[in-house]
This record gives sequence, structure tokens and C-alpha cells, in this order.
Amino acid sequence: MRLAELSERSGVSLATIKYYLRQGLLAPGSRVSATTAEYDESHVRRLRLIRALLQVGGLPVATARKVLGHVDDASLGRTIRMGAALWELPHGPDPDDDGKDEATAAARVEVDRLLEKLGWGTVREIGELSPAHRSLVVAVATLRRLGYAWDSELMAPYAELMHQAAVRDLDFVETHPSEEEKVETAVAAAILFRPVLEALHRLAQEEESARRYGL
Amino acid sequence: MRLAELSERSGVSLATIKYYLRQGLLAPGSRVSATTAEYDESHVRRLRLIRALLQVGGLPVATARKVLGHVDDASLGRTIRMGAALWELPHGPDPDDDGKDEATAAARVEVDRLLEKLGWGTVREIGELSPAHRSLVVAVATLRRLGYAWDSELMAPYAELMHQAAVRDLDFVETHPSEEEKVETAVAAAILFRPVLEALHRLAQEEESARRYGL
Repeated sequence: MRLAELSERSGVSLATIKYYLRQGLLAPGSRVSATTAEYDESHVRRLRLIRALLQVGGLPVATARKVLGHVDDASLGRTIRMGAALWELPHGPDPDDDGKDEATAAARVEVDRLLEKLGWGTVREIGELSPAHRSLVVAVATLRRLGYAWDSELMAPYAELMHQAAVRDLDFVETHPSEEEKVETAVAAAILFRPVLEALHRLAQEEESARRYGL
Repeated sequence: MRLAELSERSGVSLATIKYYLRQGLLAPGSRVSATTAEYDESHVRRLRLIRALLQVGGLPVATARKVLGHVDDASLGRTIRMGAALWELPHGPDPDDDGKDEATAAARVEVDRLLEKLGWGTVREIGELSPAHRSLVVAVATLRRLGYAWDSELMAPYAELMHQAAVRDLDFVETHPSEEEKVETAVAAAILFRPVLEALHRLAQEEESARRYGL
């Protein structure tokens, strides 16, 4: 398809598509003459992902370019490719590492105990190289600093629920045919699905609260 | 205890405690003389909650005051009291209500279908009075606008998982003795527990991905 049709199909304006092309977020179409290029379904999909990253995720263009660079790196295995793309997404602050912070030290112990209890060997081995691991340590340290003795015992059932969610996430990712689409979907889902899950959690709390205590 | 001890116990500086008192976030201690007041455990707990709201949740003082006003309103039933406090917490944008937006209309249909399928009668009845309900409509509309046909069928298993999480949340809230502490804990958990759940979800995805595809 030509640029005009790509714009129509994707709902993204011509000016914006040209901007994404200049910024290297969208791959150029294949030249059919000196002045026209041909685009295909992969461009439609890519525009969808770019909008998810920039408009919904609020990522700076430079970060989006890094994420897409990993998505496009076919030399990597799927876990590393997805992981590398997901690791570039915004995450919370890193642990306070002056070595004097008791709450962070205690949080590290509880997170490690949790991963051992769950048998999550890979993430335990990768450890704080993963931003998700670092975010968990920070979140648990914050709870402890405020006086909530949040420990591996209390976290384990939530972790099991989140593992069931992750199994569904990957089952959904696998319904997509190509390797590239699988990785794209995983990245889009990480950005787009968080507000859905959060809203469902709050609604579930409201429903359960009404069931237990009435209105 | 005196003000100095309250500061020590809570880890909050004297100047900050005085600021919270002036702003009406913290109730005054009981006067024992013209110049001294006596504070108790409820003040320690309240300082913890104030820090969760302001420092972790990033709430403006005026919003925190409204949240705490509902927490303190003993005239309300527990569901309404918790709900009112939680409803004041920041949530996503409201649905675009120009009535011309197809994605929002479709999202409303899917959310209603979901709540019916789950038998969540109360939240279905309350509908878009609840910010969580409005957030869910917006999140699903965004997915649909980007071309992801997210529907009640795909959401239902995630909603069931979030309901299991909500059951645990309320079980935890109920371990606290007084009515006031229960409501305080529910509000603190809503702010503090979101980053924990999100980090656990991402870690679970990394672990599951490594199990399925190796590294």
C-alpha cells in the first residue's frame, strides 16, 4: 500500500508517519520509484506499537527507539529479545545502595526468600540485573520503612496469582504467528495492560467489600 | 508520648509533624498543659499513612486531607468509608464523553458484559460512579482504538485472578483490630501495594518466558 493508505488504515496522520520515519521508529517502505514507496501489514502493526509506546506509555522517542531496536534484533533468543525490550520500559527508582539502609537489606532477604520458595530459579539467578527485581526490592523496602512488615510469606500467594497471569499473557502472545509479532505483542501488552489489571483489581476490591460488609 | 518521642518513633522530623498538624492531616494530641500535648499509637499509625499518601503516592496535601477525612468518618459503613477514601486516590483519565467515540462505546459494552459474566452485581450497579469502572472503560477503549480487540472473554480470567487477590487484600485488612485501622490499612495498601504487584507480574513473565523458551 502507499503512504496515504497506510495513514488511513492506521489512523495516524501523514505528517506523524513521516516524523516516525525520520526518527527511525518506522522502517522505510520498499522503493517502487524515485518518489513512491510501498508499505505492508508490518508497517500497520508497527505504527500501533509506536503509538502504544509514545502516547499511552509516555516514552521519549529515544527510549522508544531502543525498545524497537531490541524488538527487531532477530539475532537474539525470544526470552532475551522480549526481556531486553521490556527492560528498556520505564520502571521505578533503583534501590538505595549506600549499604547502610536496613530496610533495603531486609527487603533483599525477603525477595530472595520469596524467589527460592516459589522456585523461580531464572529470575533469582538474574537477580538485580532485572529492573523488575530491583523495583520489587524498592517496593518492599518502602513498605518496611513505613512499618509494614511485608515478608515472603505474605507475598507468595500474590506471586502465584501473578504467575497465573503471566502464563495467560504468554499464551496470548503465542497466538500470534510470527516471531516479530510475538515480541511486539509482549511489549504492547506490558504498556497497555497495566491499567486494565489495576482497574480490575480495584473493582474486585469494591465488589468483595460490598459482599462482605454490604454498602 | 510527647512530640519528641512521636518524632523518634515515626522517623518523621519535628518540623514535618508540626506542618502536618497545621495542615489538619494529623489530629492534635490531648493537651496536658498550656505548652505540652500527649500523643498515642493512633498518631504513629496516622503518620505512616500520611507518608504513604504524600511521599509514595505523590498526593497533593489537599487530596490527602480529603482521603483522611473519609477514613475518619465513623458515621459511614465500612464499604462506603473505604470506597470514599479510595475513590479520592488518583486514577486515570475519565472516558471521552462526546458520545461519538466508537471505541469507548464498544469498551462500555465489553465491561458491562464482563461484570455480568462474573456476577459482580454491586460494581455493575454502581457503574461509572466508580473511578475504577471509568478507568477500565478508558483502558479497554485505548486497546481497541489501537486495534487490539480486547473483549470480556479475554478479560474474564484476569478479573478472576484479581478477585482472588482482592479476597486476600481484605483478609489482610481484617487482621487489624479496630475499624479505623482496617480502613487505614486498605488505603495504605492501595497506594503501596501496586508497585509490588506490578514488579511480581513482570518477574513472573520473565520466569515463565525463560521456562518456555530458555534464555
